[in-house]
Amino acid sequence: MAVSSIASSLPAQESRELALVPRFKEQGYGAEQVARRRAWLEERTASRLHHVGRFSIASEAMRGNVENPIGAAQMPLGVAGPLLVRGEHARGTFYVPLATTEGALVRSYERGMVVLTRAGGVETRLYADENRVAPIFFFDDVAAAHDFARTLPEHRERLRAEAESTTGHGKLLRLDAHPVGRQVIVSFRYHTADAQGMNMIVKATDRACRWLVRHSRARRYYVFSGWNGEKRAAGSLMAGGKGKKVVAGAKLPRALVKGFLRLTPEEVCDLWQHTVIGHLQAAALGYNGHYANGLTALFVATGQDVANVVNAATGITCFELDEGDLYASVTLPSLTVATVGGGTGLGTSRECLEMLGCAGTGGARKLAEIVAATLLAGEISMAAAIASGEFVAAHEAYGRNRPRGVAGEGGG
Amino acid sequence: MAVSSIASSLPAQESRELALVPRFKEQGYGAEQVARRRAWLEERTASRLHHVGRFSIASEAMRGNVENPIGAAQMPLGVAGPLLVRGEHARGTFYVPLATTEGALVRSYERGMVVLTRAGGVETRLYADENRVAPIFFFDDVAAAHDFARTLPEHRERLRAEAESTTGHGKLLRLDAHPVGRQVIVSFRYHTADAQGMNMIVKATDRACRWLVRHSRARRYYVFSGWNGEKRAAGSLMAGGKGKKVVAGAKLPRALVKGFLRLTPEEVCDLWQHTVIGHLQAAALGYNGHYANGLTALFVATGQDVANVVNAATGITCFELDEGDLYASVTLPSLTVATVGGGTGLGTSRECLEMLGCAGTGGARKLAEIVAATLLAGEISMAAAIASGEFVAAHEAYGRNRPRGVAGEGGG
Amino acid sequence: MAVSSIASSLPAQESRELALVPRFKEQGYGAEQVARRRAWLEERTASRLHHVGRFSIASEAMRGNVENPIGAAQMPLGVAGPLLVRGEHARGTFYVPLATTEGALVRSYERGMVVLTRAGGVETRLYADENRVAPIFFFDDVAAAHDFARTLPEHRERLRAEAESTTGHGKLLRLDAHPVGRQVIVSFRYHTADAQGMNMIVKATDRACRWLVRHSRARRYYVFSGWNGEKRAAGSLMAGGKGKKVVAGAKLPRALVKGFLRLTPEEVCDLWQHTVIGHLQAAALGYNGHYANGLTALFVATGQDVANVVNAATGITCFELDEGDLYASVTLPSLTVATVGGGTGLGTSRECLEMLGCAGTGGARKLAEIVAATLLAGEISMAAAIASGEFVAAHEAYGRNRPRGVAGEGGG
Amino acid sequence: MAVSSIASSLPAQESRELALVPRFKEQGYGAEQVARRRAWLEERTASRLHHVGRFSIASEAMRGNVENPIGAAQMPLGVAGPLLVRGEHARGTFYVPLATTEGALVRSYERGMVVLTRAGGVETRLYADENRVAPIFFFDDVAAAHDFARTLPEHRERLRAEAESTTGHGKLLRLDAHPVGRQVIVSFRYHTADAQGMNMIVKATDRACRWLVRHSRARRYYVFSGWNGEKRAAGSLMAGGKGKKVVAGAKLPRALVKGFLRLTPEEVCDLWQHTVIGHLQAAALGYNGHYANGLTALFVATGQDVANVVNAATGITCFELDEGDLYASVTLPSLTVATVGGGTGLGTSRECLEMLGCAGTGGARKLAEIVAATLLAGEISMAAAIASGEFVAAHEAYGRNRPRGVAGEGGG
Repeated sequence: MAVSSIASSLPAQESRELALVPRFKEQGYGAEQVARRRAWLEERTASRLHHVGRFSIASEAMRGNVENPIGAAQMPLGVAGPLLVRGEHARGTFYVPLATTEGALVRSYERGMVVLTRAGGVETRLYADENRVAPIFFFDDVAAAHDFARTLPEHRERLRAEAESTTGHGKLLRLDAHPVGRQVIVSFRYHTADAQGMNMIVKATDRACRWLVRHSRARRYYVFSGWNGEKRAAGSLMAGGKGKKVVAGAKLPRALVKGFLRLTPEEVCDLWQHTVIGHLQAAALGYNGHYANGLTALFVATGQDVANVVNAATGITCFELDEGDLYASVTLPSLTVATVGGGTGLGTSRECLEMLGCAGTGGARKLAEIVAATLLAGEISMAAAIASGEFVAAHEAYGRNRPRGVAGEGGG
Repeated sequence: MAVSSIASSLPAQESRELALVPRFKEQGYGAEQVARRRAWLEERTASRLHHVGRFSIASEAMRGNVENPIGAAQMPLGVAGPLLVRGEHARGTFYVPLATTEGALVRSYERGMVVLTRAGGVETRLYADENRVAPIFFFDDVAAAHDFARTLPEHRERLRAEAESTTGHGKLLRLDAHPVGRQVIVSFRYHTADAQGMNMIVKATDRACRWLVRHSRARRYYVFSGWNGEKRAAGSLMAGGKGKKVVAGAKLPRALVKGFLRLTPEEVCDLWQHTVIGHLQAAALGYNGHYANGLTALFVATGQDVANVVNAATGITCFELDEGDLYASVTLPSLTVATVGGGTGLGTSRECLEMLGCAGTGGARKLAEIVAATLLAGEISMAAAIASGEFVAAHEAYGRNRPRGVAGEGGG
Repeated sequence: MAVSSIASSLPAQESRELALVPRFKEQGYGAEQVARRRAWLEERTASRLHHVGRFSIASEAMRGNVENPIGAAQMPLGVAGPLLVRGEHARGTFYVPLATTEGALVRSYERGMVVLTRAGGVETRLYADENRVAPIFFFDDVAAAHDFARTLPEHRERLRAEAESTTGHGKLLRLDAHPVGRQVIVSFRYHTADAQGMNMIVKATDRACRWLVRHSRARRYYVFSGWNGEKRAAGSLMAGGKGKKVVAGAKLPRALVKGFLRLTPEEVCDLWQHTVIGHLQAAALGYNGHYANGLTALFVATGQDVANVVNAATGITCFELDEGDLYASVTLPSLTVATVGGGTGLGTSRECLEMLGCAGTGGARKLAEIVAATLLAGEISMAAAIASGEFVAAHEAYGRNRPRGVAGEGGG
Repeated sequence: MAVSSIASSLPAQESRELALVPRFKEQGYGAEQVARRRAWLEERTASRLHHVGRFSIASEAMRGNVENPIGAAQMPLGVAGPLLVRGEHARGTFYVPLATTEGALVRSYERGMVVLTRAGGVETRLYADENRVAPIFFFDDVAAAHDFARTLPEHRERLRAEAESTTGHGKLLRLDAHPVGRQVIVSFRYHTADAQGMNMIVKATDRACRWLVRHSRARRYYVFSGWNGEKRAAGSLMAGGKGKKVVAGAKLPRALVKGFLRLTPEEVCDLWQHTVIGHLQAAALGYNGHYANGLTALFVATGQDVANVVNAATGITCFELDEGDLYASVTLPSLTVATVGGGTGLGTSRECLEMLGCAGTGGARKLAEIVAATLLAGEISMAAAIASGEFVAAHEAYGRNRPRGVAGEGGG
């Protein structure tokens, strides 16, 4: 039921009061229509949308990314680096764009990056590269459900054909069955190339589901069961399968840790141990210092689906003693990043991807490794700040309302 | 140790290769310095940052929000409404700004808002309004730790005085002790008025910790233990205390559900039941359809700390039969929103807050209620799309690469 | 509806096939009735229940603990010690009864106990001593629910009076409200003295609920909501409130660790770190080596409600370096133990409690401390066995089907 | 280091105070030695172990199940039934032995069994039958770890040969790698026939690990990483692999639900929905009413490793409307049961297994299905008691200290 139809059924007076947002012809993506919609909104909400109207993306280019467009949100963009990465897909020195409003964040990541680069760089490895949809099928009883799950592998080729008939990019990798009572959740796992690909694989899976309902005792299905872990926190994310599973690690020589982080490796490990305890006490999922900060800043900058931060922020940071040195690593089982589709082609997003050499086809795995290396930098910097007691001072120096004159570290 | 000092220790050649991002005088927030930094980056990364330079926020205003600024990221901004809210702090009809690149998202939230408004609006209530920091204290043995925890309440007034001496806005509400072995995690809970307030309360807590170490057998402390649930997923978030705890609910008459969502209330509840099963099977934290989508879109638009989406996305959606009608609700135990401080005063963020009548002092609770009502709209719309099998079609119509002519629903 | 009534409605032939277990007069607890029931069962299942009939508990004494009694299950009972405890309630040396069928378990706990005793004993402290029931109340909308939660504290005295009118032992300590949509879960927390007390406090809470429904806008309630964490795994258990919260710790000198556990403290801590990683990767609740083993063995021996092992096994073990020595601790937030009521007064259970000096009134806190100290012994022993690579050999030596002659360590 | 050696190093006076438990020759399993050990303990703890000494299991038969034996614990044993099961391994009517001290428990399970039997019985299906050990391997860096995980499948046959060389019963089914930083956890999954098999597969895995360390860049390993979910609560258990994954379901006609449970199917489903909410609010793992009760009672009765209740109690109960009728199911992903090895052959355990027709080889899958059906009975009965408000009354009638005369329902 179209929104406009719902509203048109409102009584006249209510309708005036509760007016729909103007749509205009063809959904109104023309520059003038966007301006008129913004003006309508300013009038109705008694606000002034000066900055909202100052965007450089072509409004027509927003079609497919937003409805009822009124302009663009702007978020400050900084850059941190150099970050030396020695991965399989990302190799070389990077300067990483970070969109944020949290003072000290860029400086903190930069500090970690410089230390890592000085230590010889970050090693990264990719373990998995897939995405999934998990429909739920309904049966009359547990026997029928069991039968379905048991015989599902026999239909794999046919299901692959059905699913892939809807897309030129998604490849169905495999199926897992998760029975619950007389229902069976089936996880369809795909390779989606450089796209995040949820829309693509939902459509493909929906087609496969229709075939299954016609050729099994399944009475019906929902294309989503909640199992897939899309944009939510779930223990099942730890095993991977929702996006890219990527690991980054580096060995930091003792002298470097002492010289530049003002700590011993033992002190960093002590912090690790006792903040793990805090996580356990909080029944937290995984363990990390602040993946969410780096992920969000990178996702906004590069046009990712930012809501995926919720699943991507799941993971485990390790600090370990290594014969007197420090070994640091991050493990990201559910990192959903893309370099084509979604918002990746829009104005500043495209430029930020280009800055990393990741724009377009073939860039997603490289981007995943850069993200992992960036998060590692953030973990080291955060750990050092807490363990050394400098955290408060750093935020004093770089946050808003800082005392005058404190931040004068720099100079060209 | 300043980043520049770390880098200056690099050997000459490496230093050329691994150059630091230019800082300029006073950290380089002037328009020209930002342009020069951007140019430096373009040269170094062989990219073209045209859009990144097209921002309207005064670069000097970014001080305290970002370091090494090079411009701003732009994200498409749409608007959804009308949304009628009947809360204690938010009352009236709202048009909600949503920054996103996910096609169909704004239309989906709009649909839910119109249905809710048509049903008489969304009722919202606030249960808690606080934020917390949870340092961990170290003792020689479990007896000393026990002693500390037992006598902690005696120091409450003194700790309050210490903590509040560092801030004009944060108020220490209470302390909870969580012993783990010979450590004690102490949760300091504050009222932070309209600010998100983490920096403020970390500083206040750090002061209180120093006093405690001087006046107890605590040997040392870390100001963070990982317990507080900041920007991560944790079971402890369900009990609230990390931000605002807010609930939104509405009764949708059967006729409305059938007429506009093309479903019966029973069908919506059936979906709820079977996607809860999927969440349980995935060991998910809480249950919801896609809080992360609405939260992210609102957080980016209104200048929130977007990384807080990870904690804020924790919560529980309910759909219940109510004598043939449908009762829908969302419960958000850990919603961290602000209307002063952080990025809330910057350009488009300020304007989006003004659009909601929430800018500045006194706006945060109102904003929390609007966010909850918005998420409720998203949950209803998502549930309807899945249960009716329209999800794929909706994304076809509004997503990128949609078939021509499908989306022509509108008209001015 | 009585079971006998259900069965009597069965058709005649089915009835013969599907006969009810004989009840006899007064439910059949007399020795002869128990024997006749057993004989009936032997005939019906073509089995021989020789050992089942060889019990020493008076069958009449089983009334209130079991229905349809046919005898008793026997489980091998060993003893481990000496265990020196320096708690607030348990002080002195204990020999701990452990009922188990897992070979090597008693020897493993004994080893840890001897090391701990040799190190000067285990320090234990109790943080909380309560139990809870969490009914859920239903309202028309979120406003009514909010109103209820807000005004609940006003009724505290009256609710206490209602609740305590049903019991001579339970004391209502406090109430917490947990709203979810238009429902409110209320956690009623009680002190239950030396009883586990669930039946007692459920009855008390039920009375209080009835009063609340009469004096509020609550439409109805369920006395259980699932929130309380009784006999299940839940993140909320970590915060305590379900039983006794107790901590045990000890410092093990380096020489002792090296001499008797054949490890350095650093090696034990390394094991801790890397098995924590395994727990995090598994999305486990808390962290421990094998609390469940010690808890089960003690619970069966001392007549606890063994199903409470599921909540009691939640907790956190720590191993920390302490200037070259090892500090070990266990934290048990949800330990439900009793020394009166339930099975604690029966035959072997009573004797095992007496062996620990914990039988009857005043014994529960002492028992809680002994349990914690016992689990600490088990954690140390398990850690040492894994870290030293002796785990397999130990189970070879003491498990079933061990090679002949391996186990000959002893001698009187 | 043997326990006796540790103690012998105690100073003389301490040694007297802190005497070791007597071991006697050959570890002291002879009847007289057990009696002497018991007498020693009575003297030392000033207790009287009359019942502890009244056991019928041959003390020599306890070798391999317990050390330092002093007798046996007795737990009251009742029986519930008839329970009609229509599984693949269990077919027919069963009377289920339940060892418990919780009054009303047997009657409650019996009630559910009779209703299920009256409805035509319980359908059960087995999805998986395996057990696992998950060692963790250590590498120099993430590249070496990645290499190891990538090439692991190539060694499968050789690892199978190594592992199976240690056992006649365990069969290595497959390997899964779970990288965390520069470590790799490898889950070795085995079929263990009718044994629980942990000792068997730990030994087999240890052998395979030694081979791997010799033939890879792994520096070392721990045979346990904590990942496998043995005797603890973990999200990863939901996916199965730790024991048998089994489902039980039944359709209960509306008339039966109304007539015998005094409820409508809608009321049962309403309870389900609102106690799921309580579980979600508590961050619980899975959802069930009281699996732990039935599991514990069955595990004690049949000689299972009772500590496995912690993993086995993970699962999901569903109540669903089915065209006016009620469909009920339980899903147990991690049920660890055995019919050979461990305590299954001892006295009362063996007899209880025989009562179910499950003793010895070939019985484990049948036992798994009976357990699942039993738990389903318990879930139905518990749900009915709570939803109807009869819970308190039932425990009044059957618990200890019940009012006189209330329980007189029976009659032969």
